[in-house]
This record gives sequence, structure tokens and C-alpha cells, in this order.
Amino acid sequence: MFKLEYVDGNARYGVINAHGISVETPVFVPVATKGVVRTLLPEEAWDAGSRIVIANALHLYMRAFPMVIKHGIHDFMKWKGIILTDSGGFQSIKNFPAKVTDEGVVFTMPDGSREIFTPERSIEIQKSMGSDFAYMLDDCPKYPYGRKRVIKSVKRTIEWARRSQGEGVFAIAQGGVDEELRKKCALEMAEMNFSGYAVGGLSIGEPKEMMHRMVEVSTSLLPEDKPRHLMGVGSPQDIINAVKNGIDIFDSAFPTRNARHGTIYTSKGKINLKRHGIKGDVIDKACDCYTCRNYSLEHLSYLFREKEQLALRLATIHNLRYMNRLMERIREEIRNGGDTDKLKEEFGINKRVK
Amino acid sequence: MFKLEYVDGNARYGVINAHGISVETPVFVPVATKGVVRTLLPEEAWDAGSRIVIANALHLYMRAFPMVIKHGIHDFMKWKGIILTDSGGFQSIKNFPAKVTDEGVVFTMPDGSREIFTPERSIEIQKSMGSDFAYMLDDCPKYPYGRKRVIKSVKRTIEWARRSQGEGVFAIAQGGVDEELRKKCALEMAEMNFSGYAVGGLSIGEPKEMMHRMVEVSTSLLPEDKPRHLMGVGSPQDIINAVKNGIDIFDSAFPTRNARHGTIYTSKGKINLKRHGIKGDVIDKACDCYTCRNYSLEHLSYLFREKEQLALRLATIHNLRYMNRLMERIREEIRNGGDTDKLKEEFGINKRVK
Repeated sequence: MFKLEYVDGNARYGVINAHGISVETPVFVPVATKGVVRTLLPEEAWDAGSRIVIANALHLYMRAFPMVIKHGIHDFMKWKGIILTDSGGFQSIKNFPAKVTDEGVVFTMPDGSREIFTPERSIEIQKSMGSDFAYMLDDCPKYPYGRKRVIKSVKRTIEWARRSQGEGVFAIAQGGVDEELRKKCALEMAEMNFSGYAVGGLSIGEPKEMMHRMVEVSTSLLPEDKPRHLMGVGSPQDIINAVKNGIDIFDSAFPTRNARHGTIYTSKGKINLKRHGIKGDVIDKACDCYTCRNYSLEHLSYLFREKEQLALRLATIHNLRYMNRLMERIREEIRNGGDTDKLKEEFGINKRVK
Repeated sequence: MFKLEYVDGNARYGVINAHGISVETPVFVPVATKGVVRTLLPEEAWDAGSRIVIANALHLYMRAFPMVIKHGIHDFMKWKGIILTDSGGFQSIKNFPAKVTDEGVVFTMPDGSREIFTPERSIEIQKSMGSDFAYMLDDCPKYPYGRKRVIKSVKRTIEWARRSQGEGVFAIAQGGVDEELRKKCALEMAEMNFSGYAVGGLSIGEPKEMMHRMVEVSTSLLPEDKPRHLMGVGSPQDIINAVKNGIDIFDSAFPTRNARHGTIYTSKGKINLKRHGIKGDVIDKACDCYTCRNYSLEHLSYLFREKEQLALRLATIHNLRYMNRLMERIREEIRNGGDTDKLKEEFGINKRVK
């Protein structure tokens, strides 16, 4: 299902084959927690260039399981591409009625009954939904954490990994910001039978340099022939850096959430659409998305300031296309042995339009 | 521009020709106050069967005039159909920084400066935007009103009508719920040169029977060969009744606003999508809209309960299609000399799905 085609330093170009389609990596995966890339129809995400989305298995199990099971997750989401499902372990550190114990994730169903996702049951549920890649249940400590908590997380996650491994399953390596624990976790998991490896528990508040160091440490020990996913990352800047450290898959609410808050990303830098006095016809001359083809920057800003919900959708389409174009250029540079750092200039990264 | 083709009792079937298209009447016109049928792209409203939209000239003047003037209102709204513009007189009874005086509508621009729309200036602005039909500035009293206020409104509106008349302009007849004043206003305006006649100042709180009586009184005195527009109406029930009293054009936020609040209209009755426990595959078996073709009722309800913004759009598409299908059937019944009252059963009017 994964074929590594080129390597340039630690950066990799590859292809994932699943659900009848081929997707080049490094790839950006938009978040569809509840089965929807927020504000978009599936065809709008597809037209923006996305081919893989990630949904949350725990959410879908709690709120929509009969429908998902009846139709299968692809029909339910009307997504003709690849679907990843996150186990829900991560949700335990967010505002969610779920808790991680030694047994697994304990949660309360809408009818008030309590259920538990053991590692085995989490995989079973994800497979029964028809997910293309199920993610193992992991124990992600909430940042800031003490070393003891991370030791426990690594021990528990390794134990759960043993009970989750198999075809179509991604491992999730933990280890906090501790190099030794990251190494131990990655090494142990590398020995097991997984279709891919995720690096989890990062981008949750720790300093950026630490995050990138942990990525580097982890990927250096993971199998070369399996795809690596850095979970919850992220910004264009972080993606460029993590690609250099050997990551193939990224998922994040970054472009979609920022779009809904009125921030779009362009080759000239980011733009706050809610600002008064925004003029100009061109949103981003480098972009070919629906929004850029049909709306001026001034018009999009007007729609945002008037609180027209259409604006959220138009901005989401643009930001998603921006991310997908960035990934296209990253892949191109890797294949050509070029320098992905120059993309920071090309994509207006860390710049702001005044 | 308007051709009356059939008359059945007082009900009329006709055709409006403008902006290079022909639109059959009676017709429902969705509201696009700020230039957008809320939550929808223009092509989504078009695909739901709409061919005419109504925008608010005062709003566009205050917030988007340079853009509207530069591109023309059709390019600005990306609307290939007919565009009506309301003058903004009605806004004075709503939450809006505008006030009606003898001179016209006085309002405060975003930069703090005060401006006035006289009757002439209102028409001039609407024409400069490229509106297909401009609506005269009227003085719509806020309900409940005393007879004195309505007398003043009628006097002022007749005087303003004289200064507004011309090709491509719709008169707006006032008169509160007073038969004599309604007659006087309609008669005076019928003598003037307008492309169409609107009945205004109704559906603002007065009892329904009074509204329908006022419509009947007004249309009986308006020129037969000009289209008649009942402003701000409305519900399917009110539309069926007003068609029988000779109305050709309706505009209302009814389907779009209710959709955003989670209420959809079907041949079995209205459905509150936010209700728990909604099951079922079929939203409305009589409907051919995008939403009905692609989503189950249970799924749409799930999206609403999860507060996915996509749900607002899907419900808006459905409700707009429902209204446009209702109008199609109304026109069919008029042409065939049938009974439009039977449509109340066919369209689930005044029923609620349990």
C-alpha cells in the first residue's frame, strides 16, 4: 500500500495506494472529525485537491454509528478518496466526555450508558466502519506532563500497540519530549506489524524545537518502507520542517479552522479578512481555487465582515487548496532534489499582508 | 417586460422578461439582502430553481457601493438571473441605522457621515447599480400604528411615487390595514407610470385575514397588465391565498431563515431537524434538490445536531427548492384551471412530521 520512491536527505517522496486510488506523499490530510470537513461538501474538498481525510472513530461511534455501519464510512461521508480514522485516544486530553484508563478509553454514550474502547475494540470498530486505515488506541498525556506520566504513557501505549497491530493499522508512538522514551517507543513499535507509523503527542504546547527534535528521533528508528504520520501538525512552516525529518502524512485543522476565523494564507502572507479597508481584486495570484477564480479579496473580506456564512466556506476552500498546493510543491522539490526551504518565500510563510 | 397569459378568477399566470431571461409568474424570490442568498453560492440558488433574487439597495450602498458600481450588481452578485433591489425604506422599521423623514431615508455611513436617500436619489442609485427593477422609496409605518400615521404614510408615499415613476421602477402601495387608504393609494399609483406594483406594509404583525383583505383591495385597483409583488410574504399558505388575490411576485426570508434555524418543509409537513431521534432515509420523496438526492433525513438531522455549518446550507437548498416547486405547481394549476387549494395537501402545509 505504500511505496517509497525517492529519498532526499531524510525527506521522502512516496505513493499510498488504497481504496482504489493512488496518493502521493508528503500529503496534507484535512480533519473531518464528525464526518465533514467543516463547511464543505465532500466534492469541494476533493476539488481543492484533497484525496485523504481523517475522521474521529470515537465521535462517529457515539453519535452516528448506526448510519456509518449501515452505509460504510465512505458512503456515509460521500468521500471517494481514502479515509483514516483516529481512535479517539487523543480526545481524552480535549474537551470530550472520555477518559483513558489502563483498560482503554472510557466514555459515556448519549443515552447515559458507559462503554469502553479497549485497544482491540477500537480497531474492530474502525474496521467495521470500513476505514481504510485504523489508528491504534494510544495514551497521549496532556501537556505539560511530568516524566512519570510519560513513562506510563509509553508503557501503556506499547502494550496497547501489541494488541492493535495488523494490516491496515497505524501505530502511534508516544514519548513526550523525552528523547530516550521517544526512542524506546519507536524502536519497540518498529518491531511490530503495522501498515504505518504515526508520531503522536506532539504539537500540544511543547516548544517547536523540541517537537522537531522528537520527530527526528522517532523517524530515524521507524521502518523506512512504511508511511509516517505526524499527528495534528500543522502549520506550513512545521510541515516543511517535519518533511525534512522524514514525515509523509500530516493532518491538522490548521487551514480549515483559521479560515473559519477569517485568516487566509496566500503567497504574499496571511491576511485577516475581518480587517476594515481591505481592497484588491486578487486574493492570491498563485492560487487556482474556486474562491480565487470567482471572488475578489475585497469581496471576500466584505462577506466576512457582514458575517455571511458563505465566507467561511470560501475561505476554507482557499486555505485547503493553499495547503494542497504547498504539498505539491514540496513533493516536486523532493523529486528534483531541490530545496524545500525556498517554499517559505514562495508561500508567504511567516509573512502578513498589511 | 410582463405578459399576462392566463387569468383564473383573480389568479394570474404570466411571464416576466428581463436581463435576457423569461421567468414565469407567480414566482418566489429569495432574499439576498447583502448580495448573497444566505449560505448559498449563486449557482446553488439557481440550481434550486430560482431565477430572480432581491437585494437591499441601502445596505449595498452603505457597505459595498464601490464594488457594486465597478462591476455592476449582476457581476458583483454573480447572478445570471433577474435582480430586484429594494429601496431601503422598509429598513427604517427594522434594526437598521436609518430613519424616514419627509425628505427621504436618512442614514449614517460607516465613516460617520450622514446621507439621505430622496425618492429620486434612491432610484438613481439602484439604476446606477444595474438593478433590473428598482423599487421606489416608500414610508412603511411600523405596526401597530394609528390611523394618523397611516394617513401620513400614504400621503408621503404617493408624493414620493410621483417623483420615482419611470421605466424599470416598481411602485410600493401602502395603506396599513385601512381599506379606504389602501384603495386611495392603489388608485393614485395606478395612474402613474410604473413597470410593476408592489403591495407593501403587510405581514408586519397585522392579523392574516386583514392582510389578505388588503391584498384583495389593492390588486383590484392596480393595472392588470403590470406585475404585482406582495412584499415580505411569505409562508406557503399565505402565498397560495395571495395568488388567488392576484399577486404575481413574492419575496421572503421564510425558506432560508427557517432552514438556518433547522426547520425544513416537506410534502409530509414541516420537520424540526434539531429534534433527537429523527430517523429515515428520505427527506422528501417529492423533492429533487441536491440535499434530497444526496443526504438522508437522519444524516441531515445529525449534521444539524452536531452544529456542522454544512447543514444550514443543505437545509437552505432544500427549502428553496420546496418553494420553487410549490410555485411551479401553482402555475400549473392556474394554467389548467385547477384548484390551488389542493396544493396545501400536496405540500404538507400546516402539517408537522412527528
